[in-house]
Amino acid sequence: MHDDFYSEVFLAFSTYATIVVLKMMLMSPMTAYFRFTRKCFANVEDTGMAKTPEDKKRMLRVDPDVERVRRCHQNDLENIIPFVVIGLLYTLTGPDLSTALLHFRVFVGSRLFHTVAYVLPLPQPSRGLTWMVGMGATFSMAFRVLSTTHL
Amino acid sequence: MHDDFYSEVFLAFSTYATIVVLKMMLMSPMTAYFRFTRKCFANVEDTGMAKTPEDKKRMLRVDPDVERVRRCHQNDLENIIPFVVIGLLYTLTGPDLSTALLHFRVFVGSRLFHTVAYVLPLPQPSRGLTWMVGMGATFSMAFRVLSTTHL
Amino acid sequence: MHDDFYSEVFLAFSTYATIVVLKMMLMSPMTAYFRFTRKCFANVEDTGMAKTPEDKKRMLRVDPDVERVRRCHQNDLENIIPFVVIGLLYTLTGPDLSTALLHFRVFVGSRLFHTVAYVLPLPQPSRGLTWMVGMGATFSMAFRVLSTTHL
Repeated sequence: MHDDFYSEVFLAFSTYATIVVLKMMLMSPMTAYFRFTRKCFANVEDTGMAKTPEDKKRMLRVDPDVERVRRCHQNDLENIIPFVVIGLLYTLTGPDLSTALLHFRVFVGSRLFHTVAYVLPLPQPSRGLTWMVGMGATFSMAFRVLSTTHL
Repeated sequence: MHDDFYSEVFLAFSTYATIVVLKMMLMSPMTAYFRFTRKCFANVEDTGMAKTPEDKKRMLRVDPDVERVRRCHQNDLENIIPFVVIGLLYTLTGPDLSTALLHFRVFVGSRLFHTVAYVLPLPQPSRGLTWMVGMGATFSMAFRVLSTTHL
Repeated sequence: MHDDFYSEVFLAFSTYATIVVLKMMLMSPMTAYFRFTRKCFANVEDTGMAKTPEDKKRMLRVDPDVERVRRCHQNDLENIIPFVVIGLLYTLTGPDLSTALLHFRVFVGSRLFHTVAYVLPLPQPSRGLTWMVGMGATFSMAFRVLSTTHL
């Protein structure tokens, strides 16, 4: 365990997991940015900049750009958190550094490209493919966890 | 720590956490399956199979079957991730193997049944009960974490 | 590792992470409470208390109080889970106990206040500020993880 936790694999996992979680967290300020530029809010107390009651009402709506960023954020929650959980357990199974780095880099790269493909948006199947590649990396690590721990 | 991490409790936790996270991840392909069979999408770039602009518009709608799978996925996020976090901390408190296995199996079993009860759907209170049983297992582990770490 | 995992920092992390995850989990029963008192459900099988088919239909609607609690829960998922992931990696970098406690307490305090500010609701910018303070604590820990692991 001492070796595993200070191993290069664990340091690599820490770095890539932090990067991809920070990327996920940046979807919140991006949502806020779109809410303020589109003047589109979900809570009545957020419409303080409105001058008239009609303005207030108009600001409480659903905007397609805001919803797009929120769907991207939701997809991150659904994919990045499983990566972090399974990636940590995978790291503790003591994989080769090069194999582990391949998994971490493919996943993080696929999610960065997924965000670009979702927010711009790029034509399909770019978003679909990046989503599948990320899932594949996590499934591959899960397979190793299950085959290692089921002694 | 060495003992804790290579302990049978930790191996059991790795296995059950991976299984239940994989189950959660499978909600994504299930959503995709319902989106394609119902021809119901959230993004305009996903409606490439449409032949006319009217077809495109018709595909950008909300479908009750898709929404049901998405609510089930959301409920998984709200319950399975707390289980993983608290379960890991619980594992590190060094519980008995049999007690730990009971918690892990009750939780994983309740969530498998919860998905069946939600997607079919089964009549209530089956879904409500499975949700409560899963929550109970997580609360019980959280209680042990708090009473062990608060020395 | 032995030292790190039984360190006071790790015990403190376990306690604060469990508290804030339990707080997040309590949003589920709070949603259920509002659904039952407002008689507002998302699934047709949940409307068993309805006496007539019209009643059933009326119960399948969107209620602003329920949606407010759900948005608060979603914000918790988007912020508390990154805290747990990055906080665990941060704990393993061996920070000072007092610095670590400062991060954990600021984060947990900000999220408790965030929930109050969201659910009541309190006038802005109280909710916005608590959200930013929590994010700041997580970013600060992420900075240390990245600067420590990138040897």
